[in-house]
Amino acid sequence: MNANIKKVEYAVRGPIVQRAVQIEKELKEGVKKPFNEVIKANIGDAHAMGQRPVTFFRQVLALCSYPELLDDDKFPEDTKYRAQRILKACGGSSIGAYTASQGIECVRQDVSRYIERRDGGVPCDPDNIYLTTGASDGIVTMLKLLTAGEGRTRTGVMIPIPQYPLYSAAIAELGAVQLNYYLDEDKCWGLDISELQRSLQAASKHCNPRVLCIINPGNPTGQVQSRERIEDVIRFAAKERLFLMADEVYQDNVYAEGCKFYSFKKVLYEMGPEYFNTVELASFHSTSKCYMGECGMRGGYMEVINMDSEVKAQLTKLVSVRLCPPVPGQALMALVTNSPQPGEPSHAQFLKERTATLGDLAQKAKLTEEILNTVPGIRCNPVQGAMYSFPQITLPERAIREAKEKGQAPDMFYCMKLLEETGICLVPGSGFGQKEGTYHFRMTILPPADKLKILLSKVKEFHQRFTKCYS
Amino acid sequence: MNANIKKVEYAVRGPIVQRAVQIEKELKEGVKKPFNEVIKANIGDAHAMGQRPVTFFRQVLALCSYPELLDDDKFPEDTKYRAQRILKACGGSSIGAYTASQGIECVRQDVSRYIERRDGGVPCDPDNIYLTTGASDGIVTMLKLLTAGEGRTRTGVMIPIPQYPLYSAAIAELGAVQLNYYLDEDKCWGLDISELQRSLQAASKHCNPRVLCIINPGNPTGQVQSRERIEDVIRFAAKERLFLMADEVYQDNVYAEGCKFYSFKKVLYEMGPEYFNTVELASFHSTSKCYMGECGMRGGYMEVINMDSEVKAQLTKLVSVRLCPPVPGQALMALVTNSPQPGEPSHAQFLKERTATLGDLAQKAKLTEEILNTVPGIRCNPVQGAMYSFPQITLPERAIREAKEKGQAPDMFYCMKLLEETGICLVPGSGFGQKEGTYHFRMTILPPADKLKILLSKVKEFHQRFTKCYS
Ligand SMILES: Cc1ncc(COP(=O)(O)O)c(C=O)c1O
Ligand SMILES: Cc1ncc(COP(=O)(O)O)c(C=O)c1O
Repeated sequence: MNANIKKVEYAVRGPIVQRAVQIEKELKEGVKKPFNEVIKANIGDAHAMGQRPVTFFRQVLALCSYPELLDDDKFPEDTKYRAQRILKACGGSSIGAYTASQGIECVRQDVSRYIERRDGGVPCDPDNIYLTTGASDGIVTMLKLLTAGEGRTRTGVMIPIPQYPLYSAAIAELGAVQLNYYLDEDKCWGLDISELQRSLQAASKHCNPRVLCIINPGNPTGQVQSRERIEDVIRFAAKERLFLMADEVYQDNVYAEGCKFYSFKKVLYEMGPEYFNTVELASFHSTSKCYMGECGMRGGYMEVINMDSEVKAQLTKLVSVRLCPPVPGQALMALVTNSPQPGEPSHAQFLKERTATLGDLAQKAKLTEEILNTVPGIRCNPVQGAMYSFPQITLPERAIREAKEKGQAPDMFYCMKLLEETGICLVPGSGFGQKEGTYHFRMTILPPADKLKILLSKVKEFHQRFTKCYS
Repeated sequence: MNANIKKVEYAVRGPIVQRAVQIEKELKEGVKKPFNEVIKANIGDAHAMGQRPVTFFRQVLALCSYPELLDDDKFPEDTKYRAQRILKACGGSSIGAYTASQGIECVRQDVSRYIERRDGGVPCDPDNIYLTTGASDGIVTMLKLLTAGEGRTRTGVMIPIPQYPLYSAAIAELGAVQLNYYLDEDKCWGLDISELQRSLQAASKHCNPRVLCIINPGNPTGQVQSRERIEDVIRFAAKERLFLMADEVYQDNVYAEGCKFYSFKKVLYEMGPEYFNTVELASFHSTSKCYMGECGMRGGYMEVINMDSEVKAQLTKLVSVRLCPPVPGQALMALVTNSPQPGEPSHAQFLKERTATLGDLAQKAKLTEEILNTVPGIRCNPVQGAMYSFPQITLPERAIREAKEKGQAPDMFYCMKLLEETGICLVPGSGFGQKEGTYHFRMTILPPADKLKILLSKVKEFHQRFTKCYS
């Protein structure tokens, strides 16, 4: 079998989650545990944690699925209009037809107008938009396209540490070289250009560094990069001729005061033609995050800028082999990027639902940070954005030794114990990468507020018990 | 960029289809052409060709999308029951939640019971079922898992010629070695074991042949392999220790009298423990074909048998990186494999729709073969199954020369002329592979019968004109 696949690791669905599923089964079978349910705070899966889908989206999807409902009075007029527009763009007016491999043209137009509005008028060509099967698909496709070579000429891909492990997994699978640059925990997981420089220099002897990945807002780290830092990164990429991959799936998930989401595209354009005519950029979005949380639909898009036209032709060919992204996900992307406008029947409810979800997330971000920081031995940066906190935990020497004897990462040892004793499922920091000798866990802020409070107080109790027990 | 990607080719969506899309735009803009519409007979996309979706499927999908409809009297009770069952298996009862990476457990159970019924009671373990993003995803994932090595140790993958070009594309992308075995056009595209033997022997010096792919019923060739031939193939795979990949996406598309679909799994089991305990097999199915034609949903599954447990663990890990297949496609797969039963409210209409679609396809298969065979210079095997005819065409020497001067495959030259003169979009045989010096085109049998007749008579006229013009 393929040896690269053996090197792939994906902690978000790793052994700890497998054990959590097992425990759930045991609970169902009546096995006694010190808890009644498993709380999964391991994955950014909003609906699974009780968030309700946006009514407008689901009404349109129902109409697209079963167009006989277009005669039904229960559906607002604008949902019908939207469904008809999507259906008209599908072969045979059915979402069961294959679409163009790049995605339905009118959906790509919606996406491009959304990007133009978001970025204050910066132009966006629908030909640069590729709809994808979730952002995961876009990211892997782009990495596949950009990586090449053997031995010392293998493509080096710079990724943040801590990172979302899709990146390390895809790099391993492709046989490319993973180049780590560390985010600065003491500066709220900020990006530091001298660290990018260090990482690049260290790499240039044994591979060919060509790609720089940024996740903003950050997963697992929850930071929102400032405009200045983004400018720095773009200058760095321009100077070093790196292809920029900007993972912006959390673009609506910004909570902290003073923080604002700036897209790489917007900043690039505002830095002038010397940049926006040369720097190669791919940016990624998804229906899975933000206020939508529609993970199961596997909707996403990528925008490519300044890509060499021959390479772009290769990209178009490459995506054609898989035929097309799922059409319900494409339809949803049309609705996300072209949401109800003032005056339209669905507008008020849509706005109410979106505001409530984002407001709720902002509160939970604050709550999580505050409660975790009351625990001696847990230190948590502000959750400025995204859906996670990634606190540093201090572990007693004896626990670290015992974990190592078991061949486990110390924070894996900690998270496993937490799961067995409390039913809480978190992901150890080692699954995302962290500075040698530091330990973390990642916890989503998605559980409903009352459950989140219980969860946090259980984590607190556990941490104190664990520390005492191993001191 | 990745040099392997440059080698990828995918004719089903290649230059001829791009030109067809262009022509459609020109027609819309009022450009005069000798025809009023482009007829796309290039791709097995049933809904795009006017086939209506199955009502039961779409009702359940609408209910899953917008569960508020569960109160609606318009939906039969069994559709509500099905929707509730699927929703209950989703996190937060929403199809917007991520599922297990292997797919929703109750869907995998439906699939496994379907396989057991289909194969007359041969056991099927839901743990061996992986839901996929269309069959394409399963096929590429399996090839990725199984291919390895460099230089002379690279994995060789045996594929039929003519083939569905997903295979050659994936093999090129992975840097594996494509090993051709030719189907016998004179024996109705039958499989010949001595040809498999020849192909294997020729290969064993320069690579490591490990995988044997079979497409049955065949695309582009429309044949249905006999039970004896399948036994031969299994014996061959056992002897040569090859991993079998059986692409059975057209398993319901069998039209010709005397032909019957036998799954590789069933035949394997009936050959006794010496085979069913040893031969490694993966088989693939999809929601895109058969009577469903739900291509846009990207539903599919694969079943793996006798896979080494460590390799299987790697497979499970590999699919987890992409999180999960689209949930509407998973839901649809549950409905396809667990369709309405006698006595249930939706049964009669379901049966009527399915029977009508399959009956219609059978008629069109016959019609296509008959009309094409009336044309001197076109010779067409019976369309026993699948959705395509792949006739051989005799081209005048002068046409072949002119094509070669243009750097085009002669049948590409032919199909391009056909498109420009008649608006009919077919795929040249060269896109699928064919014996040196023979020429073909692939045509789907999917257009509605009246349109299909017009299409066939236009092809007939064109072929006569073309032959005359170049003689
Ligand atoms: C940073 C980041 N990028 C990409 C993804 C992939 O999401 P999806 O494939 O569901 O769009 C995720 C999912 O958690 C993520 O956190
Ligand atoms: C033989 C064969 N296998 C696999 C596929 C892939 O289909 P899908 O990915 O839509 O399931 C096709 C599509 O035409 C096919 O003909």
